[in-house]
Amino acid sequence: MYAVDRDPLLLTPGPLTTSLRTKQAMLHDWGSWDAGFNTITADVCRQLVAIAHGEDSHVCVPLQGSGTFSVEAALGTLVPRHGKVLVPNNGAYCARILKILGYLGREAVELRFAEDQPADPAAIEAALAADPAITHVAQVHCETGTGILNPLAEIAAAVARQGRELIVDAMSSFAALDIDLRTTPITALVAASGKCLEGVPGMGFVIVRQSALEAAAGNCHSLAMDLHDQWQYMQKTTQWRFTPPTHVVVALHAALAQYAEEGGLNARHARYAANCAALVDGMAGLGLKPFLAPEHQAPIIVTFHAPSGPNYDFKTFYAAVRDKGFILYPGKLTEVDTFRVGCIGALTTQDMAKVIDAVGATLRAMNVAVDG
Amino acid sequence: MYAVDRDPLLLTPGPLTTSLRTKQAMLHDWGSWDAGFNTITADVCRQLVAIAHGEDSHVCVPLQGSGTFSVEAALGTLVPRHGKVLVPNNGAYCARILKILGYLGREAVELRFAEDQPADPAAIEAALAADPAITHVAQVHCETGTGILNPLAEIAAAVARQGRELIVDAMSSFAALDIDLRTTPITALVAASGKCLEGVPGMGFVIVRQSALEAAAGNCHSLAMDLHDQWQYMQKTTQWRFTPPTHVVVALHAALAQYAEEGGLNARHARYAANCAALVDGMAGLGLKPFLAPEHQAPIIVTFHAPSGPNYDFKTFYAAVRDKGFILYPGKLTEVDTFRVGCIGALTTQDMAKVIDAVGATLRAMNVAVDG
Repeated sequence: MYAVDRDPLLLTPGPLTTSLRTKQAMLHDWGSWDAGFNTITADVCRQLVAIAHGEDSHVCVPLQGSGTFSVEAALGTLVPRHGKVLVPNNGAYCARILKILGYLGREAVELRFAEDQPADPAAIEAALAADPAITHVAQVHCETGTGILNPLAEIAAAVARQGRELIVDAMSSFAALDIDLRTTPITALVAASGKCLEGVPGMGFVIVRQSALEAAAGNCHSLAMDLHDQWQYMQKTTQWRFTPPTHVVVALHAALAQYAEEGGLNARHARYAANCAALVDGMAGLGLKPFLAPEHQAPIIVTFHAPSGPNYDFKTFYAAVRDKGFILYPGKLTEVDTFRVGCIGALTTQDMAKVIDAVGATLRAMNVAVDG
Repeated sequence: MYAVDRDPLLLTPGPLTTSLRTKQAMLHDWGSWDAGFNTITADVCRQLVAIAHGEDSHVCVPLQGSGTFSVEAALGTLVPRHGKVLVPNNGAYCARILKILGYLGREAVELRFAEDQPADPAAIEAALAADPAITHVAQVHCETGTGILNPLAEIAAAVARQGRELIVDAMSSFAALDIDLRTTPITALVAASGKCLEGVPGMGFVIVRQSALEAAAGNCHSLAMDLHDQWQYMQKTTQWRFTPPTHVVVALHAALAQYAEEGGLNARHARYAANCAALVDGMAGLGLKPFLAPEHQAPIIVTFHAPSGPNYDFKTFYAAVRDKGFILYPGKLTEVDTFRVGCIGALTTQDMAKVIDAVGATLRAMNVAVDG
């Protein structure tokens, strides 16, 4: 073990390693009633809508809390009390949507897919055709439980053909994987500050078609999560309804400036794709195999099969890699022993090479044989 | 107008001016699954419970979002679906509780008091005696709308005599005004990171009697706000259920260290009381009168009557004082023209003297006559 003179790098789906410039933006206090701060909020929202090309149709409503708060807010605000939601389910975050709908008392229909298979647009379209009572589809874009990419454009087209509304959990894809609201019919897109935008965690946001939001007054089960009320108040006052996480907001503003300077979505995607390729290649060299077929893998987070030998256990492995300066992530599958490694955050292929060195050294020290 | 070479001071009820040390704690990224971070969360919770002397009876459940999210979470988690809540109402935050209960579909009874009068324990006790169906009282401790202090110990005793549960919004009082859970029967105490603890905004917490929380499974209307579920998960894993606002949590940890070093609650209270006295005295010298009688004023935020002359308007006044480096707060009363000035945050009586200088110079420049 060599000494590490810096913070460990976070190879996780968030919170991520962020740039020092993003964190330094938090060295100031801002009044939440003050125009200086509210100009920043407006600028953040404008930029978020622009990333998805929604300027002509959608508005951005930011919300305090984690990304899951915004997912719940979108479902609670946009699905009427007597709505019915189809949930294609191929992982843990799809299952979370079903759990939220249970809390909200909104009727839900689960459409199951294997965890290593993307949601199938044809099956979704058939389920909608068979049940006219379904009003909404709630789809996870990149399912972080495995790292699988669901075919959003094809699903959106199918949902539109059937005349239903689409709510997308784009938590771990937004700003890195292209979503074009001009050509992809989506009612609401949910994401958060601390993922591919490389801000710090503490707020989410919903990019929602203005006409759908206008029609959503009175739906929501919660004052705090009522996106219609939040939006109306912001329109009127330029302020958040309740105390905003001011430091998180200004950090996101700084992160967005760096996003633009890097070259926007294409550049961010290219860096993550390079990280992902370097990771998968390097791990293959150690004999570690991804859980997903390459064509289903999003360049966000990769699930690897755990080494099968008797000397391996995740806790020891995690701790040893952490001591080398890298924080990995546990698997989220119940049937298969796995661990996950993120490709996102302020990381480059050089960092990925160091991660692979640390993983390799750890496995050798643990005397874990991998069938490479 | 003289140039200001520092951030403006926030004379508001939060977000507040925090110390540089608190903000510098946010210059690191933390993995939310990592033991290093979860040790910090546990230590924060332990210290928060200790501030209210609840170690033998209460647990702390932190929650993402603003303080209002935690108020809603406490009501939604602790009041059963067929519960009934008495809300003594003498201001805007009491009214917000009524609004939340409306969203939640929980029956509520409003007990109105004048905005310049504290809630009356005898009237509360009479209302409870008259209506055995009432299960809970939801009381604001320091009503930030005016700055009035409600007599919490007497109200808690009355509620306990009547055998009902008490949920307290202690948002702007916690850690500055003494609340002793050993002697004051309170079911749940709600506050947030960005108030008298002088952390940054982005999380709240509920200090709740463990037996009441254990009995609250299945009550909550929201997955994100289910304090029972959050607590169970934390007990099992040491982690937050959903991505925590890591930087806000470590800033609160740093703020708590400074709270202890300053001398804890007594010292914090003494500093704020001195700030409040200096403010009220100095403003009196300018002819500006507080809205509340001195015996009802909490040393947290002071509402002042606006100057009555035709040359005064708040926006001009606010902007001019801001240009001098101080951010004031608008009034929240509909009947009377007022503005508010906070006494809390990393501020001293020397800062208050500068605020008064700035206000005096502004009023003179505006040629506003005050009846001093």
